[in-house]
Amino acid sequence: MPGLYTADAGATEWLDSALTDLAEFRSTGRPGWTREVFSESYRESRHWVADKMRAAGLQVHVDDAGNIIGRLPGRNPAAPPLVTGSHTDTVDGGGRFDGVVGVLGGLAAVETLRESGTVLGRDLLVVDFLGEESNPFGLSCLGSRALAGELTPRDLARTDYSDRTLASAFEDFGLDPSDLLGRAAWTGTRRPHAYLELHVEQGPVLEARGTEIGIVTAITGIERLVASFTGTPDHAGTRPMDDRRDAMVAAAEAVLAIRAEGCGAPEHGVATVTRLENASSSPNVVPSLVRLHGEVRSVDESWLTGTRRRLAEEIAARAGQHGVEADLSWTTDNAVVRSAPGVQDLAAAACDAAGVSWLPVPSGATHDAVHMAALAPMGMIFVPSANGKSHCPEEFTATGQIATGVRVLADTLIRLDTHHFPHPPRTH
Amino acid sequence: MPGLYTADAGATEWLDSALTDLAEFRSTGRPGWTREVFSESYRESRHWVADKMRAAGLQVHVDDAGNIIGRLPGRNPAAPPLVTGSHTDTVDGGGRFDGVVGVLGGLAAVETLRESGTVLGRDLLVVDFLGEESNPFGLSCLGSRALAGELTPRDLARTDYSDRTLASAFEDFGLDPSDLLGRAAWTGTRRPHAYLELHVEQGPVLEARGTEIGIVTAITGIERLVASFTGTPDHAGTRPMDDRRDAMVAAAEAVLAIRAEGCGAPEHGVATVTRLENASSSPNVVPSLVRLHGEVRSVDESWLTGTRRRLAEEIAARAGQHGVEADLSWTTDNAVVRSAPGVQDLAAAACDAAGVSWLPVPSGATHDAVHMAALAPMGMIFVPSANGKSHCPEEFTATGQIATGVRVLADTLIRLDTHHFPHPPRTH
Repeated sequence: MPGLYTADAGATEWLDSALTDLAEFRSTGRPGWTREVFSESYRESRHWVADKMRAAGLQVHVDDAGNIIGRLPGRNPAAPPLVTGSHTDTVDGGGRFDGVVGVLGGLAAVETLRESGTVLGRDLLVVDFLGEESNPFGLSCLGSRALAGELTPRDLARTDYSDRTLASAFEDFGLDPSDLLGRAAWTGTRRPHAYLELHVEQGPVLEARGTEIGIVTAITGIERLVASFTGTPDHAGTRPMDDRRDAMVAAAEAVLAIRAEGCGAPEHGVATVTRLENASSSPNVVPSLVRLHGEVRSVDESWLTGTRRRLAEEIAARAGQHGVEADLSWTTDNAVVRSAPGVQDLAAAACDAAGVSWLPVPSGATHDAVHMAALAPMGMIFVPSANGKSHCPEEFTATGQIATGVRVLADTLIRLDTHHFPHPPRTH
Repeated sequence: MPGLYTADAGATEWLDSALTDLAEFRSTGRPGWTREVFSESYRESRHWVADKMRAAGLQVHVDDAGNIIGRLPGRNPAAPPLVTGSHTDTVDGGGRFDGVVGVLGGLAAVETLRESGTVLGRDLLVVDFLGEESNPFGLSCLGSRALAGELTPRDLARTDYSDRTLASAFEDFGLDPSDLLGRAAWTGTRRPHAYLELHVEQGPVLEARGTEIGIVTAITGIERLVASFTGTPDHAGTRPMDDRRDAMVAAAEAVLAIRAEGCGAPEHGVATVTRLENASSSPNVVPSLVRLHGEVRSVDESWLTGTRRRLAEEIAARAGQHGVEADLSWTTDNAVVRSAPGVQDLAAAACDAAGVSWLPVPSGATHDAVHMAALAPMGMIFVPSANGKSHCPEEFTATGQIATGVRVLADTLIRLDTHHFPHPPRTH
């Protein structure tokens, strides 16, 4: 079979043209490279992805959850397979690299194996997971959740702004939601041997340190906060300043308290407020009900726990000084997920063998890998993001940098193929 | 003619029953007592108002701007008339007293004159001004603006959320917008002798001091602020805290700076932020464009000017510490309008003669009086608001307190009837 590369075009050239071609599938009228889950541009792009998988010599099928799975057969079809991949959907106004690098990089790794004459003992699955990015149903990582058996009937009943259910969205996309929960799951005897994902860093650390590869130590836990501030709706023209219970002022104090908490994190920890909503739209009433939406992330569970406690005290105390009541509601979006030490070690060995610089890094963003970690030892390989930018049109990683990631991915897969994990797969 | 009061029902009883009856005209399905301009409940209530004016012995007509005008003829029809009144529309979720007290109180004052056998030298006009409260067209005091000749073709082209023009709203309400600009205006030779408005304080000062009457010294100027904060839209999970340009943090700093400025006002000055809008709705992006909506009010022009300057510096400096650019845009909603000293003096004399306690007070809210001040010497009489509450269902003033206001209003009108103002009417 011909393979992906030609005499004129090696890994770098192929990645360059594939990234360009895939980016053509985008929703017109939206900023950047927008290819949201369930959109028409996403639907069309998936035929292109399947074709590229076939061109890489993979056996392609789409599972009940809409994941596109390309199989490179190994010598022992009965052995638990190796899995790599990522996603090809984007956020609204997103870029060309987030997720895409892991899918196209997986295919390039297959080609690298083929060129070097390597035949793995196990099957290698390259997966384009359905809908990893956030969507109007408020549930990201749809495909990887389904594989991990974590997609529930309650999830399928979630609705978007027009009250369409997630189940209907699956159906409209040509998938059968009544069957996908059980049939798609890779639980029980279908668990893979290991999962390894190539991804852009989406942060500035690798570029700033001049390092080629990040080996992910853990994916941050995300604690989401909704804080409600209740004061008194007085006339903004007549109520003296010293007699107010201004919910907006209390919310502003909370924004600064949350930032201060993030700034005090001992290692990677971030704290962000994205939204303050005043329940009233009146321009001349002292705000009496303001809702704050924020999040705190870290790979350090004890800091996350301490942060929730400290912010509860600090925010209530500052609000109290303004006569405002604060009611905090926390939701764990996902707990901290650690990469398997064995996978980290093999990726480091692959970097060292290739003379590639690397750093252990946390992942501040969530990934399909969070859900795959429930099935198998998990690892992630990061390549640098220019200026740390992501989820925007300026998102950029040079194809040479991606090609380095592909080399490390391919060699780590070879090492994983024969690796014996001392512990049973994590089932967090 | 019979008049408003009976042997069983004097001013207090009549006010009580009239307030109750008028409050029946309200939009069902809305909170509180909601009777917004151009609404069906407002339309119906205006027949009731006109009937009550006729019952008070007034000659009633509705002018081209929709103001309901009741005339009590004086001995000299050629003399510039005295004018009192207020409005009967409410905010959404409003109360039963704001505005209504000035219209019904005006009728009660007519009855008080009649009972005492007083016939004024001048005509006395009691006006129910059209639409004083804020509305979706973003223009309050529609009727009094028209009388003052301040309603412009540009105002009539304003649109609400459904792109209906203000002109269409007038038309749908049975008024002819093509004629109202010129014909309604009381400019030139139609200027009145004086304008005196009875209103609830809408603030806590009179009740807190145990004072029966407030004599308004000035109506605050209102400076509205829209501040835009521009940072960088980074991934909220991956961008380290010390490398962010977070527009929400800069906006929160501004909220606290604006409050601090209000708290530092030497006399009545207030500063309020009512809204912070993040242009993005994404839950995992560092806010990069946040708009702040606020206002500053005072009767002290120099403080208002200084506040604009100080806040421009302070907000930009704090934003700069977070790498965020702040762009401030100020609009003067209305300049400070002072009550005519002569009107204040006569109202004080009326209080003293009746043994009624009074205080000079600023008005933190805007009123039809702001626009009437362009036509004639202006004054306002405040009665206490329970707990200082206004623009909410809890808004309350006892009818006994209103009746005291009516006595002061009637006596001040008698004194104004023969008063010679040394200066020409202000024309700000």
